Amino acid sequence: MPQRLDSAAPGFDAAFEMLLGSKREASQEVGDAVTTILEDVRRRGDEALITLTERFDRQSLTPTTLRFSADEIDAAHRDLRPEVREALETAHGRILSHHEKQKPQDHIYEDHLGVTLGTIWTAIEAVGLYVPGGTASYPSSVLMNAVPAKVAGVERLAMVVPTPDGIVNPVVLAAARIAGVDEIYRVGGAQAVAALAYGTETIQPVSKIVGPGNAYVAAAKRQVFGTVGIDMIAGPSEVLVIADGSANPAWVAADLLAQAEHGGGAQSILVTTDDALADAVEAEVLRQLAMLPRAEIAGAGWDEYGAVITVGSLEEAARLANRIASEHVELAVDDPRALMARIRNAGAIFLGHHTPEAIGDYVGGSNHVLPTARSARFASGLGVLDFMKRTSVLGCDPGSLAELAGAAITLADTEGLAAHGRSVSIRLNR
Amino acid sequence: MPQRLDSAAPGFDAAFEMLLGSKREASQEVGDAVTTILEDVRRRGDEALITLTERFDRQSLTPTTLRFSADEIDAAHRDLRPEVREALETAHGRILSHHEKQKPQDHIYEDHLGVTLGTIWTAIEAVGLYVPGGTASYPSSVLMNAVPAKVAGVERLAMVVPTPDGIVNPVVLAAARIAGVDEIYRVGGAQAVAALAYGTETIQPVSKIVGPGNAYVAAAKRQVFGTVGIDMIAGPSEVLVIADGSANPAWVAADLLAQAEHGGGAQSILVTTDDALADAVEAEVLRQLAMLPRAEIAGAGWDEYGAVITVGSLEEAARLANRIASEHVELAVDDPRALMARIRNAGAIFLGHHTPEAIGDYVGGSNHVLPTARSARFASGLGVLDFMKRTSVLGCDPGSLAELAGAAITLADTEGLAAHGRSVSIRLNR
Repeated sequence: MPQRLDSAAPGFDAAFEMLLGSKREASQEVGDAVTTILEDVRRRGDEALITLTERFDRQSLTPTTLRFSADEIDAAHRDLRPEVREALETAHGRILSHHEKQKPQDHIYEDHLGVTLGTIWTAIEAVGLYVPGGTASYPSSVLMNAVPAKVAGVERLAMVVPTPDGIVNPVVLAAARIAGVDEIYRVGGAQAVAALAYGTETIQPVSKIVGPGNAYVAAAKRQVFGTVGIDMIAGPSEVLVIADGSANPAWVAADLLAQAEHGGGAQSILVTTDDALADAVEAEVLRQLAMLPRAEIAGAGWDEYGAVITVGSLEEAARLANRIASEHVELAVDDPRALMARIRNAGAIFLGHHTPEAIGDYVGGSNHVLPTARSARFASGLGVLDFMKRTSVLGCDPGSLAELAGAAITLADTEGLAAHGRSVSIRLNR
Repeated sequence: MPQRLDSAAPGFDAAFEMLLGSKREASQEVGDAVTTILEDVRRRGDEALITLTERFDRQSLTPTTLRFSADEIDAAHRDLRPEVREALETAHGRILSHHEKQKPQDHIYEDHLGVTLGTIWTAIEAVGLYVPGGTASYPSSVLMNAVPAKVAGVERLAMVVPTPDGIVNPVVLAAARIAGVDEIYRVGGAQAVAALAYGTETIQPVSKIVGPGNAYVAAAKRQVFGTVGIDMIAGPSEVLVIADGSANPAWVAADLLAQAEHGGGAQSILVTTDDALADAVEAEVLRQLAMLPRAEIAGAGWDEYGAVITVGSLEEAARLANRIASEHVELAVDDPRALMARIRNAGAIFLGHHTPEAIGDYVGGSNHVLPTARSARFASGLGVLDFMKRTSVLGCDPGSLAELAGAAITLADTEGLAAHGRSVSIRLNR
């Protein structure tokens, strides 16, 4: 049974704090092992990558077979079932169209002193995309990571995907082809992150690495951060449904179960103003569980990490939501726009009764790579801006330099940096 | 003597690669010590913070004196020399005015199917600002970090600054007051980062930590990343001056020395199309060095890390600049706007002969917190966006949900996530 909390009951604050603080991931101490792997690939390049892939994925590769050939990728695309190809193309088109609206504008202007100021946006030249192997090898995630990179203008998008025992998900290759991924390598783990960060004879280094992975991949990304950029470290997925009396308990239950079926610590929370709805949703979850192929995973996740919280008002629901800072927040209420204005910490907001979170996972057009583990307090979902960078621009003419010189020289002197001041004063005609 | 390279000479590529790959920081292995400190503060809160501050800063504090009082801060501001106060206020006004132009707009729209899509920007609620003690305690850096946070709408900006042996730079306190910092604590090191990330009895936790620090601070930021957001790990400062025959060698030399006087691995590079200018700049550096109070630091930095590269054309200069990806790029050329269009990887660009980099450090209005160590390939200078986060918005009505349902269900099935598909199909009236 999931936790059931009542915000008006004594002891609620402590119980809510416990819920916020609970860890949903087994923390694996893999840092030292990863350091060794990174160093090995850094020093020995392809040779290390091939040895490690043999050890971890039981795959014998050569510098030539490290990379998927164009024929292999084309075949995966050609052999797709037509409805899957069409669904991928629909998803790709919608993600592309939405992300194109995120492209930022350069802004250069002259201020009242004649100083030129501005910001120029440019794309990162080369990006690496990590795609997990096995059951978490999701074609939709390939689209969600690759499309914003390509919209940003990344010229070289290099994907890595482990193929343990030679097994690869062909739909992942096809999705990469549709999204315009430029290179795909059959390597994974910390060794793949190292290859992307440092480069090998076969894999050119990139400047940023994105995409989810296991504890080794996460630790490797953390360690190469600085040498390259990285996206967030993804944790277990989570949904928070805020519902009032207008919500359909069967629909809410279906959404809570969709999240719970991810397993691995995925969390579903319902916050509702309606006690009867809370009861009805709990009953519906049990009823629907019986119909699910992944019933065992979803049921265990709901029992262990699920929570149902009853509150006195939607204002109170919003306050709790902002403290939870969930990856996904569904507003299953009569007036979702009004409630949206109160939600500050959320990866993504889903409006009203007809927007199940799963629509956003695939074809809504918005990105499904979103901040987890309360990081929506400070982080954003993936978007075009994550594949670009800003360069600031400053320009003075003799007149504006003269206007600013005094304050600059005073501050340089205050900081004990005389050569800074001198680089200004030497330009003044006095 | 700095390195002198000629791009037309044999062996240039190898020498240039060496220059790119050279480490300018002694890498200190402080990770384990930092882990212990973080854990101590996490468990014991104020008590650990006070004990560690006594050990590292030789300062006896109590939970009451951990925080600077309003009186202490007011006094620091009141006792400023008038020209310093005025210079700080000039800098603050210009930084504020420029950063206000960076505030992003929300964007919500409805697409042709009637799907609502959008992005909402909100400020991070609480941010921590690390300010180093001792000689690197720069009031200008307080302004550069605090102003964009306040422009973004951060409600609570908590600053930490170590006061070894009780010594604090009053100008730093005054700058914090001018910039609207809300709380200032006299702690530093990894223990201060821990207090900001985890909170103690006296210091409430924040959601993001920014600001430069020593190896312990950098390691602590890396370790708390995920629990909170962090900015880039700052490395030694650097400037790249691209100059043609129109440049004034004395001015270029002054700019190279301004960077070199930072010490600690700071790097100055000149790339020029003009051999005679290269010679003249080298001579000028030696001449001007003699006049500098920090001549020893600047001279050693120029000798050890400086480089002068002669190239055949400005196009070639831009290509090298993009590979160097310097924090600061000065375009000391006749037509800086034309050359700017070719620069892709740079933290900030300074246009023309009358824009010494030091103007940007203090009063230009743009931010001086910029990506170092080649990270301008993937990272940006600090700005308002770094103190905000995006929430994506998605909304379907029954009609648009029906349009998207088929593709969503197909992709969910392909990924083996039946409950995802079910959360969509349950909403269809069939």
